[in-house]
Parts: sequence; structure tokens; C-alpha cells
Amino acid sequence: MINPFTDEYFMKKALQEAEIAFDKGEIPVGAIVVVNNVVIARSHNLTELLNDVTAHAEMQAITAAANYLGGKYLKDCTMYVTLEPCQMCAGALYWSQISKIVFGASDESRGFLKMGTQLHPKTVVKRGVLAEEASDLMKRFFATKRK
Amino acid sequence: MINPFTDEYFMKKALQEAEIAFDKGEIPVGAIVVVNNVVIARSHNLTELLNDVTAHAEMQAITAAANYLGGKYLKDCTMYVTLEPCQMCAGALYWSQISKIVFGASDESRGFLKMGTQLHPKTVVKRGVLAEEASDLMKRFFATKRK
Repeated sequence: MINPFTDEYFMKKALQEAEIAFDKGEIPVGAIVVVNNVVIARSHNLTELLNDVTAHAEMQAITAAANYLGGKYLKDCTMYVTLEPCQMCAGALYWSQISKIVFGASDESRGFLKMGTQLHPKTVVKRGVLAEEASDLMKRFFATKRK
Repeated sequence: MINPFTDEYFMKKALQEAEIAFDKGEIPVGAIVVVNNVVIARSHNLTELLNDVTAHAEMQAITAAANYLGGKYLKDCTMYVTLEPCQMCAGALYWSQISKIVFGASDESRGFLKMGTQLHPKTVVKRGVLAEEASDLMKRFFATKRK
């Protein structure tokens, strides 16, 4: 039997969130949190709208997922996020003790891997899922901004 | 003329916030944001009450200060925080481009200095202001929890 709940399936939902951010003039990053194949949180970057550097997609998704679960730890959860998390978001994911992080495009300048931000020892990371789609969206966004 | 607006003066206000957290059963960390000797944000850790690992004092203070200023960058601001910020909070402070961070007690296990979290190049850091008071409050909190 074919499993429809692949990483690509869920990353597409995160990409849909990124597209919503794009349409709002926000840097297009989207994130969702999944537990047992159910999406329990979805969010996109809102730093411009909220005038708040902490309003990254991942931060909102962590808060929303904890609210849904009624507890602050995301131990059996997977986050799908279109761009590699930054120091702040990786630091928040550390505190959340999330089980798995799947990200799309790498962020070679400000991503947590280059910055050396520490995740929780139990957190598994998978990278590069629909990376090209996420990266294309970012490039399209910054090309528009330069016009 | 004596300047009443010393770092100790403002750190006492952050400590008052930490004491409010203590009374609520939260890990007692407090933070304020100051611009031109005026306190524009004050907050304390609320991770338990809000069931949210992102609800550190610093995160809330950044959001509140940006809200007050009507812009997301805290370029002329100083944050006073009773405990050395973690990776998440230091990462948020990086994005905020805050001018100065003054902290009290060091966090040898999870503080941003040990973790190597990068701040904005323009951010100045001063440590150890009323460190003993902040540290005593933390010790008192964890001693109560162990009972």
C-alpha cells in the first residue's frame, strides 16, 4: 500500500504557507507541525505585518502546536519548514524537544547549521526536501523587492 | 551631578520582574528594554503559564519594545536581563539589532556565550550586573522546587 504521507506531501503544505507569506510581502517561509500524520499547526513568516523580528514561521508554529497539544513539549512532533531555521528558531526548537525537523532550502549565511546552534540531542534533522521549490520562491521574492 | 540612571538602577527593575515570575512559579528571569533612560518594555518568564517554550522574558520584551517603537529594530535600545540569554533569545536579539545587552547572572550550561550564538556586530554586551541577586533568586527557586 502506498503511503500518501511522505515528507514531500507535508512539505508542500509548508510551501503553501510560504506562498501566503509571499503574497503578503513577507519573506516567504512557511512551517507546519505534524503529529501522527495530522497537521496541528501551520504558519508563515509575519515579521513585517507584526513589526516583530520574533514572528518567524517556526516560532509561531511552536506556539500554536503547544497550544493544540496543551503542553509545551513537542516530543512526538515533526516540523516541516521551507527554509533552514535560524539561530533563534533552532534555539526555540531545542527547548521544544521536537522529535524531527525537515527543512527545504539551506540558508548558507544565517542557517543554524553554519551558526552552530545546538538542537536537543533527541531531535533528528532531514534537509533538502523540495529545496528547489523553496529556494525558487525566495529568489522570486527578492527579485521582486529589487525592482 | 550624580546620574541616577545606572546599570544597577535598571537591573533592579529587571529583578523586580524576575521576582514576579518567582511568585508565579516560573523560572525567575526578568527583562526590561530601555531607550534614553526610559523603560519601554518589561516582562518576565511565562513558559509555564503560557505552556510555551518561546515565552522567555527576553522574547516578550523584544516584541513589546518593537510594539512601543512602531518598528521592529531596537537599534538605540538596551536590554537588561537578570540571566544570560539562551540561544533562542540571543538569536532574537541578533535580529533586533539591539545596541546593548546587560545581563546579571551567567548561565554556564545554556547561556549564549558558551553556546556560541552570534549577536549583531553592533551589539555591546555587559555582564555581571547584580549577578549575585539574580543568581540567589534562581537558587531559591530551584531549592523550593526540590522540596
